[in-house]
Amino acid sequence: MTGPVSLAIDAMSGDHGQTVAVGAVRLALQQHPELRLILVGDASRIEAELATHKLTGDAHVSVQHASEVVEMTEPPARVLRNKKDSSMRVALNLVRDGRAQACVSAGNTGALMGLARLVLGMLPGIDRPAIISAMPNVRGHAHMLDLGANATCTAEQLFQFAVMGAALATAVDGIKRPRVALLNIGQEDTKGHHTIRDAAARLSASDLNYIGFIEGDGIFFDPVDVVVCDGFVGNVALKTGEGVARLIRRFMREEFTRNLWHRLTAATAYPVLKSLSKRLDSRNYNGASFLGLNGIVIKSHGDADARAFANAIRVAALEVKKNVPRRIGARLAATLGLSAVSRLATGGA
Amino acid sequence: MTGPVSLAIDAMSGDHGQTVAVGAVRLALQQHPELRLILVGDASRIEAELATHKLTGDAHVSVQHASEVVEMTEPPARVLRNKKDSSMRVALNLVRDGRAQACVSAGNTGALMGLARLVLGMLPGIDRPAIISAMPNVRGHAHMLDLGANATCTAEQLFQFAVMGAALATAVDGIKRPRVALLNIGQEDTKGHHTIRDAAARLSASDLNYIGFIEGDGIFFDPVDVVVCDGFVGNVALKTGEGVARLIRRFMREEFTRNLWHRLTAATAYPVLKSLSKRLDSRNYNGASFLGLNGIVIKSHGDADARAFANAIRVAALEVKKNVPRRIGARLAATLGLSAVSRLATGGA
Repeated sequence: MTGPVSLAIDAMSGDHGQTVAVGAVRLALQQHPELRLILVGDASRIEAELATHKLTGDAHVSVQHASEVVEMTEPPARVLRNKKDSSMRVALNLVRDGRAQACVSAGNTGALMGLARLVLGMLPGIDRPAIISAMPNVRGHAHMLDLGANATCTAEQLFQFAVMGAALATAVDGIKRPRVALLNIGQEDTKGHHTIRDAAARLSASDLNYIGFIEGDGIFFDPVDVVVCDGFVGNVALKTGEGVARLIRRFMREEFTRNLWHRLTAATAYPVLKSLSKRLDSRNYNGASFLGLNGIVIKSHGDADARAFANAIRVAALEVKKNVPRRIGARLAATLGLSAVSRLATGGA
Repeated sequence: MTGPVSLAIDAMSGDHGQTVAVGAVRLALQQHPELRLILVGDASRIEAELATHKLTGDAHVSVQHASEVVEMTEPPARVLRNKKDSSMRVALNLVRDGRAQACVSAGNTGALMGLARLVLGMLPGIDRPAIISAMPNVRGHAHMLDLGANATCTAEQLFQFAVMGAALATAVDGIKRPRVALLNIGQEDTKGHHTIRDAAARLSASDLNYIGFIEGDGIFFDPVDVVVCDGFVGNVALKTGEGVARLIRRFMREEFTRNLWHRLTAATAYPVLKSLSKRLDSRNYNGASFLGLNGIVIKSHGDADARAFANAIRVAALEVKKNVPRRIGARLAATLGLSAVSRLATGGA
């Protein structure tokens, strides 16, 4: 797919609302002039923010008014029932109506997922979306799912995650036969519980490039492209990893500021520390996709800054260009033997 | 408890056998002259290693011959059936017979757990041991369990882990009412699956100082003393955290050796980097306890070096001095309303 890419940006959700969203839009446009970004939310506040960023009247940007905002802790069920004019829902409506090709939001994960299912619908054979994100790995990155949408999963669901994750890796990374692994507590066949072993049997019998079980450290070191786990394990792993990284950054800062001599050392080491901090910057991994939907929805961290949010926009644009839902739909249809394929899977949108 | 502390050291298991075990014994004795260490395994190989460390004839050290070694990948069931004279089993026998107060092994986790249950037995009310270890936390450390013994757990088991973990934190850290949290994928009451929510209800109704759900990053940042989860989640979290730490160390090494200038910087920053690396040294956290056994068994990492293994010996000695199994047994008996209490719980051994 070439030509302009239209994205609906939920500009009001997340911890920082339009401040961060518009800042991210400016950064994203600097790097990706092919984008057309529709900022959804309180028009007057968005226009004011656009003005501070000298983006008033910019042809790449438009505003779609929405009168409500989904709060970060609001119960998803209530959001679905009420808040018909929230920035989140209106942004998803734009995708449903073909006015945008993807939606990016930093809002309440549960509400975004519920609304996305309601507004866009699921691909045939999939009940609930799975959250996938790239994780740093010594060989580049690995895609990991589910990162929290499904607290418990059947073996069949884990298998479907594998199919979707592999299709995504093929689409965005161009890997023909992505290596798929199950996250487990040991590498031997006998390890783990029956669900994971059943999933392993299902994967072994499939045409996926299933390489077996990996352990937590394998996410970062093993030769793997797609790591599959249930949403409970995936979410804990993701946040534990983030916690360790934050703890180490904190220790580094403490050590390099402990006394005058250490501060001088930090000054000398500045270029090294800067390049290190760039490599460790979690903002480069912001932007998780909801897979299994009939459309592209990218979730940014709630407390993302403009740089991080801009990365989520980049992820959305990449998935649009690579036709991710269509390719996942086709792969699911082929693997699960579904005759009915979705609008997107047959080339719509 | 004062006076000498006798520990049985499985000197043959783990990736490095007696080389590391004897090196660790030397380090441990330098810091803890109150220890009496019984090295279990191939007597001639242990004696040879003792000689290289100038420990031949040392009054703090003795050797107990055992003719077999449990391999790292050997199925536990086979180890239990055969290998009656393995260094692992003989070391556990010494604890059972009161000749040692704790056992330390770097061997095959599954085999060690199976043998420990068989040889030492469980505390009343507990079916299987849970693995607990201290994790670094901005406030010092938190104890986390289960780290891999139980791939699936009932709410009642999670509750029992909480009771045991709290008793351990009280015993070794002197915290009167340790703060206990459940590891979950969100902090709201509605998060997670029914097992974790049932465990939360059970904990809320108990006399433990239950503070609610924490997420993965909370292990390192929240004000918590005991983190409870099932063994699948705990093991993945532990290894993911280790993986992230290893990845960051690797990035640091790469950045500080990228070119001559960076190498010079590293030389200037040496004192800072050394003190940082000391704080990040995972060897300070080596030594996980099997809780719920009628005795003290400490598992060292299979690939631990002498410094790490020495820490596992330190953990064992601390638990002996603090009477950990007796205090856990008493706490379990009180909480679970058990009238029968174990030998250790009534003050034996």
